[in-house]
Amino acid sequence: MTLSDVQALTFDVFGTVVDWRTTVIREVSTALAAKGVEADCEAFADRWRFEGYVGGIQAIRRGERAFTTADALHCEKLDELLAGLGSPLDGAEAAELNRVWHRLDPWPDSPGGLGRLRTRFIVSTLSNGNLALLVNMAKHSGLPWDCFLSADLLGHFKSDPETYRSAARALTLEPGQVMMVAAHKADLDAAAACGLRTAFVPRPREHGRISPPDLEYEDRFDFNAADFHDLAAQLGC
Amino acid sequence: MTLSDVQALTFDVFGTVVDWRTTVIREVSTALAAKGVEADCEAFADRWRFEGYVGGIQAIRRGERAFTTADALHCEKLDELLAGLGSPLDGAEAAELNRVWHRLDPWPDSPGGLGRLRTRFIVSTLSNGNLALLVNMAKHSGLPWDCFLSADLLGHFKSDPETYRSAARALTLEPGQVMMVAAHKADLDAAAACGLRTAFVPRPREHGRISPPDLEYEDRFDFNAADFHDLAAQLGC
Repeated sequence: MTLSDVQALTFDVFGTVVDWRTTVIREVSTALAAKGVEADCEAFADRWRFEGYVGGIQAIRRGERAFTTADALHCEKLDELLAGLGSPLDGAEAAELNRVWHRLDPWPDSPGGLGRLRTRFIVSTLSNGNLALLVNMAKHSGLPWDCFLSADLLGHFKSDPETYRSAARALTLEPGQVMMVAAHKADLDAAAACGLRTAFVPRPREHGRISPPDLEYEDRFDFNAADFHDLAAQLGC
Repeated sequence: MTLSDVQALTFDVFGTVVDWRTTVIREVSTALAAKGVEADCEAFADRWRFEGYVGGIQAIRRGERAFTTADALHCEKLDELLAGLGSPLDGAEAAELNRVWHRLDPWPDSPGGLGRLRTRFIVSTLSNGNLALLVNMAKHSGLPWDCFLSADLLGHFKSDPETYRSAARALTLEPGQVMMVAAHKADLDAAAACGLRTAFVPRPREHGRISPPDLEYEDRFDFNAADFHDLAAQLGC
């Protein structure tokens, strides 16, 4: 099986397709300012993402807590972070802020690049987000997905191997007919270990204060691309 | 909860959105004529559909056979039907013919009607077809789905109640926020029993020789519409 056998591209979403950090900082700032609350909104966004969502998924993958959705993990951490600020939002306001993850803005090249790529490939999410979140985000941001594969549909979170294998099965493809596209090398390495092809697209502005983003191209990936338009050009779209 | 709470429309696909019978008869005729085989292609299509696919799903729902996909049920019955004609197709030709179910033509109002409906609602499949089949069909026919819910993703075939309940859960909606759209009253009645709203859209040309299609409007459905444009108009899209 060669690279020309690839029929579907599966994309990491948070960070790779959408700029979660800028959007979340903006909406947190607006929501807190409306209540006259001063806070470090960058730190708020980073803790929400890395302690709440990423930490929650790690605990689920280790078997320390029951399977749940990204929406639920976000809600739980938001309640904790707001409590630390004196709980300035009422229930409806907090629920509305929690849905910021459903309306994240795309990186500038994402809608157009995906549009080019879908002329030759099935383009699908392969995200730890839940289906409703991903569908609402697509409608908000004009992301022209062909389909959605998500942790709640597959019953596994990345980077468990079964996530990548069940994604290929759901598409009725062999792992070598699927290429994972991500800004995060750990995601790509886990996909490659399951037989998927890999394309690395660095997103230098993603990470903020917690950890440096992955930036350097690597020979071990099948493709390294500056953005989705570059990837489309390399793939002949 | 009222009709104005509906946020998502879930559609039966075979017969409601696409004209499986005309497409299958045409492709079977072409494939057999190329081999000089004369056959009753209408009867071939009806047996493929009703004995292979519908009958296979009924056996799975009764627990008489293991869960499998629409693709596999179609393949099994196709092999049997071709054997009855002296197996005129080789393996690759039969596999290609089996994929006719991935390239079914839509009813004329389906692409445009779905496009109108998705301006106000999430429009999703809720089909006993498998994901790859539905995604390929959407690309072939220009069906602008927001997302796909399918038997293989949900682990249940209609009209098992868990199919409708798990569809609402996957959309993070209450059953009463979801409306099932179908040309088949049994599908709508099963959805209504799970708390979903219902819209009936008759497709008089679907059935062929096996059984008469459902045609009469019914007061027990929330909406009765002549086609998807009429449904869009009734829903204010």
